[in-house]
Amino acid sequence: MDVHDLPTPCLVVDAGAFAANVATMAAARPGRALRPHVKAFKSTALARELARAGHDAFCCATPTEVVGMASVGLGADLLLANEVVDRRRLAAMVGSTLGARITVAVDSVETIAAAAASGVREVLIDVEVGMPRCGCDPAEAGALADAARAAGLGVRGVMGYEGHLMMEADGKAGKVEAAMARLLAAHDAVGGDVVSGGGTGTWDTNTWVTELQAGSYTLMDGDYARLDSPFRPALAVWATVVSANRAKGWAVADAGLKALATDHGPPTIDGATVWFCSDEHTTFSVAEGGALPAVGDRVALRPGHVDPTVALHERLHVVADDRVVDTWPVDLRGWDPRRP
Amino acid sequence: MDVHDLPTPCLVVDAGAFAANVATMAAARPGRALRPHVKAFKSTALARELARAGHDAFCCATPTEVVGMASVGLGADLLLANEVVDRRRLAAMVGSTLGARITVAVDSVETIAAAAASGVREVLIDVEVGMPRCGCDPAEAGALADAARAAGLGVRGVMGYEGHLMMEADGKAGKVEAAMARLLAAHDAVGGDVVSGGGTGTWDTNTWVTELQAGSYTLMDGDYARLDSPFRPALAVWATVVSANRAKGWAVADAGLKALATDHGPPTIDGATVWFCSDEHTTFSVAEGGALPAVGDRVALRPGHVDPTVALHERLHVVADDRVVDTWPVDLRGWDPRRP
Repeated sequence: MDVHDLPTPCLVVDAGAFAANVATMAAARPGRALRPHVKAFKSTALARELARAGHDAFCCATPTEVVGMASVGLGADLLLANEVVDRRRLAAMVGSTLGARITVAVDSVETIAAAAASGVREVLIDVEVGMPRCGCDPAEAGALADAARAAGLGVRGVMGYEGHLMMEADGKAGKVEAAMARLLAAHDAVGGDVVSGGGTGTWDTNTWVTELQAGSYTLMDGDYARLDSPFRPALAVWATVVSANRAKGWAVADAGLKALATDHGPPTIDGATVWFCSDEHTTFSVAEGGALPAVGDRVALRPGHVDPTVALHERLHVVADDRVVDTWPVDLRGWDPRRP
Repeated sequence: MDVHDLPTPCLVVDAGAFAANVATMAAARPGRALRPHVKAFKSTALARELARAGHDAFCCATPTEVVGMASVGLGADLLLANEVVDRRRLAAMVGSTLGARITVAVDSVETIAAAAASGVREVLIDVEVGMPRCGCDPAEAGALADAARAAGLGVRGVMGYEGHLMMEADGKAGKVEAAMARLLAAHDAVGGDVVSGGGTGTWDTNTWVTELQAGSYTLMDGDYARLDSPFRPALAVWATVVSANRAKGWAVADAGLKALATDHGPPTIDGATVWFCSDEHTTFSVAEGGALPAVGDRVALRPGHVDPTVALHERLHVVADDRVVDTWPVDLRGWDPRRP
């Protein structure tokens, strides 16, 4: 199928840019030195491409993602890099992933108790390294590891996410080092052989982790692309121009807030200025002297933030030379309690 | 089921607030004086409640919504209040809704040609009334109506959405009147008995339309709730506290950008200050002197914008006195070409 025949709005992956991103990262972080974060793309088909590139350990954000990955045979080493206290959901996840290796992040006595009560066997101690989100204080990490072991859990090591530094422009290396010093101090107290952390924004500066939790590099955020980075934007939301107001100089494409995430700002369109997104539409203009597109023309919108954009769609269309060469279901969406 | 037993994140509808909102609007805009906009809630079960309240004509934003509504017997008078140029999708919509009355918005010769070629029988001329989005200039409306009639289409009248005035604080009535003057001028040239427009934000000021296209009033945006309005917020995203950093004073709930829309700002939590949302989390603090919730506690997040929030979920849980009394599937999501 020609990409211009796809119904819009739809997600289009540039096969060449995707392959280059995967190869660049695999060269720098081969095999298990990378633990790709499934939350960025929520697709087992895309994950399989990463496994082919040598990465067979993955990071997940939800039990639904863990179960989905294990169900397609990608369960060699799955980290649920997120705190969960819902024991029914954890137990359902464990019961649905027999034969897979599952590790869960914990940062409190409550999350340790939930893991132990739900049949989880291994954990990482999640450490706060400067970002106001999950993770214990480094000084508490050793005691939590002791509590986890006392509850019968294996403690594989630590994780900590320096998310506040991903877009840092000045002195990034030093700030990442300081954040990772907190993680390494916790690791000294915890033990184990895993130090997990980092992301696409610190892929080359974070040299302290044993495994990098990057996922967005595969499709590459428009926002991340502002960084000096070898990763290329590989994802676009294709839309159709459904209205053009030549007198007033704007056109309207049929992709809006329900088709792309705007939390990192509105999408961009090459050669155009985006005015705003509403539920179903994006209004834009072209530079003075340029011609507005015709009604029926296609435009590619580059989303600022890949992860929540992909989660809005049911499939990713992989395109090379304007041909759709593959379709990857976005099969890890939602939090269905029936697919825990 | 007790609402506290629902897996999180999940959508919770306050049954009392919802019923009051529906009754208030039905009293002011009975029967077909209201054409509820399905895009706000994307649920045929919720739409059925509105039909019970006397409204049996509905507004849709996508062919998928039109087909879904017709398939459950709510096809008495469905307006696709949106321009579509994809002839395959329009034809599939027409073919899937035989027996229903379908009207489609058009604002150009291209959209008229697409409608005529796809078996659509009736249209409204969509008029730009001040918001930079779809709609023709009022001066072009008569000629477009002639073109539509010449193409064999029935022209029922006009529509125009004064979306730029929904949150207007000063002189709203006069500004709405000016916007509607554009629509009525177009109506004079177009003819027909339908003048469709307005929304929750102009429910009481727009007295010119024959039918009001409001939908958000049912669940009520947090953002709209800033207006002096009788409609009460009826929708919350329930989340579980999965981490609490007492030393630093923040807690983390398990609902983020993939569970709620932030285009109208971050969600609110009663008695708390929301710091930010990330993919899976919302970080918040409580006022000085207050106690952070415990890990495992539930919190209700009030989203700023209802429409794109609902579209992130598979179901709405209707709750009265902390009991789940009904579950409404969000069955009109997406743009599946197989459900056109």
